[in-house]
Amino acid sequence: MDPVKHIDSLKNTTIKEVVLIKEKSRWRKKTGRFVVEGLRELKMALNGSYMLESIFFDPGIIGREDVQQILNSYKISAELISVSHEVYRRIAYREKTEGVVALGKAKSHSLESIKFKRAKPLILVAEALEKPGNIGALLRTADAAALDAVIISNPKTDLYNPNIIRSSLGCVFSVPIAAAPNAEVIEYLRKNNITTYAAHLGAKHNYSDMDLSSCSALVVGAESSGLSEEWTREANQRIIIPMRGEIDSMNVSVSAAILIFEAMRQRGFE
Amino acid sequence: MDPVKHIDSLKNTTIKEVVLIKEKSRWRKKTGRFVVEGLRELKMALNGSYMLESIFFDPGIIGREDVQQILNSYKISAELISVSHEVYRRIAYREKTEGVVALGKAKSHSLESIKFKRAKPLILVAEALEKPGNIGALLRTADAAALDAVIISNPKTDLYNPNIIRSSLGCVFSVPIAAAPNAEVIEYLRKNNITTYAAHLGAKHNYSDMDLSSCSALVVGAESSGLSEEWTREANQRIIIPMRGEIDSMNVSVSAAILIFEAMRQRGFE
Repeated sequence: MDPVKHIDSLKNTTIKEVVLIKEKSRWRKKTGRFVVEGLRELKMALNGSYMLESIFFDPGIIGREDVQQILNSYKISAELISVSHEVYRRIAYREKTEGVVALGKAKSHSLESIKFKRAKPLILVAEALEKPGNIGALLRTADAAALDAVIISNPKTDLYNPNIIRSSLGCVFSVPIAAAPNAEVIEYLRKNNITTYAAHLGAKHNYSDMDLSSCSALVVGAESSGLSEEWTREANQRIIIPMRGEIDSMNVSVSAAILIFEAMRQRGFE
Repeated sequence: MDPVKHIDSLKNTTIKEVVLIKEKSRWRKKTGRFVVEGLRELKMALNGSYMLESIFFDPGIIGREDVQQILNSYKISAELISVSHEVYRRIAYREKTEGVVALGKAKSHSLESIKFKRAKPLILVAEALEKPGNIGALLRTADAAALDAVIISNPKTDLYNPNIIRSSLGCVFSVPIAAAPNAEVIEYLRKNNITTYAAHLGAKHNYSDMDLSSCSALVVGAESSGLSEEWTREANQRIIIPMRGEIDSMNVSVSAAILIFEAMRQRGFE
């Protein structure tokens, strides 16, 4: 094998940039790059046709051959860079780590990029979610249901946030995602004849009484404040998950999953 | 009003003990006490007939009258102790805080303490869960469905962990909870003629094809390893949530919620 580049200085400009991209959303936007760590996540990104530009590995943790093998199996030619343990620890973000960090090229998350897989699409719209852990859990559910799309309406968080990548177990790369302002999302769904069902505590109709087997978008609101007035007003139907407890509140990723899998049940899990 | 005790020293022995109880599971077990913070959580504990022994408040954040009013409305007589801001910050565990921390008396979480509300009980069994955030989300869902009980099988985490209290929004006080070793839980459910449905990736039957309207316990496994062999073998029925994505894995609190609300749907949300 050809020799690979080796970096052992924290002052190296490439390393400094990787750290900035890992830590700063602003920097990710500016460069159009993100940082992904771990073998499973790397493969999820490659499965999702993401372009990985450089792959950094710590030879004390993982052999060059193992990394090369992944690249070969995907027939891609990213630059392989060996780094010292000190440098690796600086660019990694997980505690239990596998010795691989890659720099990837972000994709556009435009509404126009959505391609429906189902004849009668099933979509989740999540408004203004902020907590990476909730977004991550939600993307895992979206992957499990093979949703046609997850649309983040009025996004507050950069989707390539390392905590979203981690908590989604890489599903941020497998799920078709778009992000846009509320008005554009509402207009987009209307144009595509997709019925919008907004989860709302003031709604009269049970979610399970709805026919969710036709073209449907399930709409859930932010953790703290719930759905905005705009979505509450513009949705075709307001629906409620009946609750019988002391507090009228479930975790947003939990509510979304209940709605998604009721739709899946009605569709025979297809 | 009578004057209240005031503590402004971090070296005060009561304060030192509250900190130990907040931070150390071992100390909570030893003393049979726990620490609860915030107005909503305090009320949830009182609604759940928990005994609060002392209530510490920071007069710079909340007035004594407001705290007293809560005690009066529940007709309880906990000792009210005013503390300096420095002391309050030491005993509080949340970032956005409301100025109130109480020392409460733990309850027994024995299987014998469970009292069924429904004629045909609906129970969730969670095996060896560890992450406080997942347990918290699960307890919120259990509250929303007014489950007859949540049983923690082979418990790994102390239920009065401040992060469980916080992430459950106090539902750890409203939900009937028991904790016991696997064998005892299995025996308990068998004796009570409750059918056990274990979520398992190798199962052949869809969860939604089961009749969950009779006496049912839904059993979910640990985040990382899934259900143990013991539960997989001993459950009356193994069930699966069909997944259609790249990774065969949802968050455990999400899977539990999908199962619980399918049972709720079959029962007409009663």
